[in-house]
Amino acid sequence: MSYNLLKGKKGIIFGALDENSIAWKTAERVHAEGGTFVLTNAPVAMRMGKINELAEKTGSEIIPADATLEEDLDNLINKSMEILGGKLDFVLHSIGMSVNVRKGRHYTDEKYDFTTKGWDISALSFHKVMQSIYKSDAMNEWGSIVALTYMASQRVFPDYNDMADNKAYLESVARSFGYFFGKEKKVRVNTISQSPTPTTAGTGVKGFDGFISYAEKMSPLGNATAQDCADYTVTLFSDLTRKVTMQNLFHDGGFSNTGVSQEVIEYFSK
Amino acid sequence: MSYNLLKGKKGIIFGALDENSIAWKTAERVHAEGGTFVLTNAPVAMRMGKINELAEKTGSEIIPADATLEEDLDNLINKSMEILGGKLDFVLHSIGMSVNVRKGRHYTDEKYDFTTKGWDISALSFHKVMQSIYKSDAMNEWGSIVALTYMASQRVFPDYNDMADNKAYLESVARSFGYFFGKEKKVRVNTISQSPTPTTAGTGVKGFDGFISYAEKMSPLGNATAQDCADYTVTLFSDLTRKVTMQNLFHDGGFSNTGVSQEVIEYFSK
Amino acid sequence: MSYNLLKGKKGIIFGALDENSIAWKTAERVHAEGGTFVLTNAPVAMRMGKINELAEKTGSEIIPADATLEEDLDNLINKSMEILGGKLDFVLHSIGMSVNVRKGRHYTDEKYDFTTKGWDISALSFHKVMQSIYKSDAMNEWGSIVALTYMASQRVFPDYNDMADNKAYLESVARSFGYFFGKEKKVRVNTISQSPTPTTAGTGVKGFDGFISYAEKMSPLGNATAQDCADYTVTLFSDLTRKVTMQNLFHDGGFSNTGVSQEVIEYFSK
Amino acid sequence: MSYNLLKGKKGIIFGALDENSIAWKTAERVHAEGGTFVLTNAPVAMRMGKINELAEKTGSEIIPADATLEEDLDNLINKSMEILGGKLDFVLHSIGMSVNVRKGRHYTDEKYDFTTKGWDISALSFHKVMQSIYKSDAMNEWGSIVALTYMASQRVFPDYNDMADNKAYLESVARSFGYFFGKEKKVRVNTISQSPTPTTAGTGVKGFDGFISYAEKMSPLGNATAQDCADYTVTLFSDLTRKVTMQNLFHDGGFSNTGVSQEVIEYFSK
Repeated sequence: MSYNLLKGKKGIIFGALDENSIAWKTAERVHAEGGTFVLTNAPVAMRMGKINELAEKTGSEIIPADATLEEDLDNLINKSMEILGGKLDFVLHSIGMSVNVRKGRHYTDEKYDFTTKGWDISALSFHKVMQSIYKSDAMNEWGSIVALTYMASQRVFPDYNDMADNKAYLESVARSFGYFFGKEKKVRVNTISQSPTPTTAGTGVKGFDGFISYAEKMSPLGNATAQDCADYTVTLFSDLTRKVTMQNLFHDGGFSNTGVSQEVIEYFSK
Repeated sequence: MSYNLLKGKKGIIFGALDENSIAWKTAERVHAEGGTFVLTNAPVAMRMGKINELAEKTGSEIIPADATLEEDLDNLINKSMEILGGKLDFVLHSIGMSVNVRKGRHYTDEKYDFTTKGWDISALSFHKVMQSIYKSDAMNEWGSIVALTYMASQRVFPDYNDMADNKAYLESVARSFGYFFGKEKKVRVNTISQSPTPTTAGTGVKGFDGFISYAEKMSPLGNATAQDCADYTVTLFSDLTRKVTMQNLFHDGGFSNTGVSQEVIEYFSK
Repeated sequence: MSYNLLKGKKGIIFGALDENSIAWKTAERVHAEGGTFVLTNAPVAMRMGKINELAEKTGSEIIPADATLEEDLDNLINKSMEILGGKLDFVLHSIGMSVNVRKGRHYTDEKYDFTTKGWDISALSFHKVMQSIYKSDAMNEWGSIVALTYMASQRVFPDYNDMADNKAYLESVARSFGYFFGKEKKVRVNTISQSPTPTTAGTGVKGFDGFISYAEKMSPLGNATAQDCADYTVTLFSDLTRKVTMQNLFHDGGFSNTGVSQEVIEYFSK
Repeated sequence: MSYNLLKGKKGIIFGALDENSIAWKTAERVHAEGGTFVLTNAPVAMRMGKINELAEKTGSEIIPADATLEEDLDNLINKSMEILGGKLDFVLHSIGMSVNVRKGRHYTDEKYDFTTKGWDISALSFHKVMQSIYKSDAMNEWGSIVALTYMASQRVFPDYNDMADNKAYLESVARSFGYFFGKEKKVRVNTISQSPTPTTAGTGVKGFDGFISYAEKMSPLGNATAQDCADYTVTLFSDLTRKVTMQNLFHDGGFSNTGVSQEVIEYFSK
């Protein structure tokens, strides 16, 4: 299905690694809705992924950028405007990585160099992306910036480790920058708090399968998939949601407001 | 603009009084997006309004119903399915009225008959509507039910009186019923927490002008209008938001997450 | 242990049924801390309970009152001031009952007479109590009013039924009335959102054992007991918390901010 | 007044600069309630302040520590246990500083070295403190850890700059570490979200006077003072609040749940 919801709209999509990525699905969906965009990812991620395939499929160019480096971001944004022929209407930030998780450090035994690096990549990068856009005045009025987050920012999921704190910072950045982007540029900034999603990045995490299964049983409509998230993101990029800003939007089949489901409680009722 | 987002979808819209109503704007917008619907309002409201005009414009039929009466609702739902030729895909609940406010009773001097009546109309009616639909199995899978609310349910706005408590109840009903509708029927239920809106109902309230002006200054993107709300509601009725449920969604230009704006603080800085 | 935290303070405690009641434990604790009070409960509840025993133990008088009847409340408040020799410093509202639950009606099959009655008893009664106090100017400055609530007001627990909606209304009343009580009388109003507690009322509810066990496993510090709640309530009645108002305070061993615990996730990881 | 609420309890208090500091007032109050403690602050802050005066008054020793350095923290914690003669029962973290604010950098023009340093001092330091305590097993069961925060973590106050994001991270650390401290050590961790307070640090901030005045008018009970905060903190250190954990507790005279006050709306109603 396609509605031409994003006809004529231009943007940048961060973080498409392979066809399991939310960013990948979103790129396909945005393309189907008539939007054009530049794809970007960290040089190291690009070697592992197959972003070229996606670029070909969607007629997009790729500009590698390390989202922690201001000069990379400035270059990305300026080149993107050249390629796309004008300012941006949408941006998707789908970037996150905890070095502590990768290295198997428990939350109570963090190595702070790892913590700082993970925070820079996962949280501060969102500020850097927006600051670069803001200074270049690179967004059209009524443009839309979205970052992906997870509910661990608000409630503890023990294996999520320092990514919880990073996501809390990211959500705060969305609000803080959203205020100034709203006032000065009429641009909206939101985060989508998505169900746990079996992306290539996600599935590596310890206990992930049990967690997906638990979330599925707790969500009245089941977990939201990467494809569902792509659909939802398209509505946030469209002109139909212009007054939604500075929000953290749960897209999770109802998980966030379910205290316990009947299926889960039954495990404890025997 | 139109995207055919609701092509083939059928529904019921409660609460269109005149062209200032959010429900009125939504009906027009849903019509433009290809949806068909039945309009309904309380018999007394219909005498005051011009709902016939809207019905004509959108090719809709009108079925009067008092949303506090189960038999009226059962009749409405059954007749609507007959008229529309099948089950429902969307429902908008835009109903609210405080007798205490109308009669000028302060929140600390409520008359409890008034309170009960206002609660029945403004809050319990949403349960009654959903229970009637649920029992008649009148929604298609992946249908969407939306009710309008206001942030006074979460933070105090002194003149909003007992409507604050009614809206808190309404939002809870959305979650509670949303759980069962999700699990059993794959239907989603959400509330939109809208900017103060100068509808014919709203503008009668004491201090409303000052309040609109304050909210405008506090919202980085300005207040969301009735037209904006109609646009947003359309996304929630569409197939692009299938996994959003049991949420209270702020549609307010950023008001809800603004602690104070620069413009407002300046009044206090002299 | 005792600290004389409430020495010289006077109040009213609603809802002590038997020694499992939170209100019962609170009465004992307040007494130990030097506070004096009147006990009250609905006439029907008093016949079932053993409130006389508590009254004797704490040197208190009992004034029966139906908390849904304004004249009963006015009488209670005026008599209490006479008995205690002055205005009130604290009030505990621990009242709740769902007729739908009692009669085995599912949330999607409510009988609305039952719903209205349960709402009146469980939610509106809190407004009535405060309005009666407010009109009689019966609280001293810096007094404290507390009502007990449960997290189902914010997230769905399927068996909690319409009590969820009642508690949402109650929490809103705390905020709304808290605003006016704060501004006009320097009195604070808060709700405590307590762990599920095996009171005589609670244990009757279907599935309650499984639920207690689940909550215990989800709460890093375990469920808060009635005794714990009595301790906490004493701090809210004391002079040390004078600027805490209009809050819903979770007292639950950390349940509310735990997305999932290790113990629970293990059930789903096999 | 004094209740002996903290008799026999031992702890560490971070961040007392001068008699306007919340940490200073808390130290005095804890002392009055029978608690003993070690005072600590960054070497640079100690040169500016008059912490010796406080140490003398309260019979405390001072151990300088840079809260961003693990070795300083390990030393502090081990020495404190020696001095106090056992494990800790309470810890107060009252540390925060934004280099961007100090250097006059706007939120949309951050220098990221400044951002990182401010985050390390204001947010990550809380993790470092707790990790050091956790690894040394330095808390007694049912001990209490409290950090001070501000509501800008949840709603935007434009001049608060990157401290908003730091506070969001800090609050997340409280939840995340609170989970493990609860499960493994029966220790609770909470943050107090305090009214804007005219400390020596605070009053330097641009627009602070207007902001204090606005907050005063918006809070039904007025702003909470440093002294009020000290009182409240004492309850959280006491044995009466053992099951409160992983919470962000608003201590603000009702500001957080006031949408608008009558006094404020009147500025916009002319």
